[in-house]
Amino acid sequence: MDFESARGLLEELLPFWRELTEEEQEKLAAGVGTKCFEAGQPIHRGREDCTGLFLVYSGQVRVFITSDSGKEITLYRLFERDICLFSASCMLRNITFDINIEAEKPTCALLLPTALYERLSRANPSVADFTSQLMAARFSDVMWTMDQVLFSSFDQRLATFLLEQAGIDGGETVLMTHETMARHLGSAREVVTRMLRYFQQEGMVELFRGGVRLVDLDRLERLSRF
Amino acid sequence: MDFESARGLLEELLPFWRELTEEEQEKLAAGVGTKCFEAGQPIHRGREDCTGLFLVYSGQVRVFITSDSGKEITLYRLFERDICLFSASCMLRNITFDINIEAEKPTCALLLPTALYERLSRANPSVADFTSQLMAARFSDVMWTMDQVLFSSFDQRLATFLLEQAGIDGGETVLMTHETMARHLGSAREVVTRMLRYFQQEGMVELFRGGVRLVDLDRLERLSRF
Repeated sequence: MDFESARGLLEELLPFWRELTEEEQEKLAAGVGTKCFEAGQPIHRGREDCTGLFLVYSGQVRVFITSDSGKEITLYRLFERDICLFSASCMLRNITFDINIEAEKPTCALLLPTALYERLSRANPSVADFTSQLMAARFSDVMWTMDQVLFSSFDQRLATFLLEQAGIDGGETVLMTHETMARHLGSAREVVTRMLRYFQQEGMVELFRGGVRLVDLDRLERLSRF
Repeated sequence: MDFESARGLLEELLPFWRELTEEEQEKLAAGVGTKCFEAGQPIHRGREDCTGLFLVYSGQVRVFITSDSGKEITLYRLFERDICLFSASCMLRNITFDINIEAEKPTCALLLPTALYERLSRANPSVADFTSQLMAARFSDVMWTMDQVLFSSFDQRLATFLLEQAGIDGGETVLMTHETMARHLGSAREVVTRMLRYFQQEGMVELFRGGVRLVDLDRLERLSRF
């Protein structure tokens, strides 16, 4: 990625860009680098490394925790234009858990080195605020996952509903808005949207405007029976 | 709590106090109030209210999530000198989960109203940084709980819970029904009762009406560390 495109991406993805002085902007643009990872390559392990913030511009990243016995739980995924905060977790002095970050597909990202980001953050409240907002978003992702894992069978209900509905329509697509699905399931639109996105990430469905295509029927069946 | 003591507490508990201008300090000290809650009284429900940051100076607070079916998971507890961030969760625009905060014992706290805190935070990077660090600490608490819930076996979780609870109460008994323990652990009463009976058979605890006496602390510790 050339300098101008990198600068354009920073400008677009960092809401605090316009709050920076011209000098800060120059320093930031000059300080970022590009880093690419192969599918399966670790980006961050535990609390040991602290490279900086990654601004993903292509590919897909998985963030997960592992148990001592080797079990894994995926906390969330990052896609194009998402920003990876925990690769700079040393910055957040109170983070005491180990998190693993891995490229799930070939991934390229801009790297905003920790020291540079910290300097900006100490000088400019809108940078520090951005860190909080970013962490709040990830916190919410994790809480959603926790809720799913602990409480929910909403994935099961939605899978069942999609299969039924596709059966009714005699095909493998469900032409229905998320709003309508939510009404059928006694839920909220955001809940349906979030779960459908999760199904999509897992390769079970494809979303398109006005509907859903079921692509892995076996897995949806298994989910609905569980 | 009188004005001088309140000011002293702010000075002690807020690491950014010394980074504030004298004027900001005055405004902050003048803007805080005191709020007391009875045991069992809700302090915050879901995302609806957004009172502000509570600086707990006596008592004990429980933070938990609930499922649609009424199951509860305790995320963490706050004690004297802890600061409650999620009672100001509207400030963190990206928080999309519902959290419940409840006084577990009679609790008094200084209340730092949201609007006042936000104004300070926009003006001063060390306030915004404090928000991040506080959120990182709570995030870590939640990750610890998640790790417990997802990866530990139930005997281990129950042993850990009993030890924590006895520690909080400063003794070797836990005065709590099986039903309540089950709620705290996101489990069912029968599961708790069965495991407690097993603990009793093994000589680790003694059961009595309304509570549990811990008799083999060493073994419970070993179990909880396993």
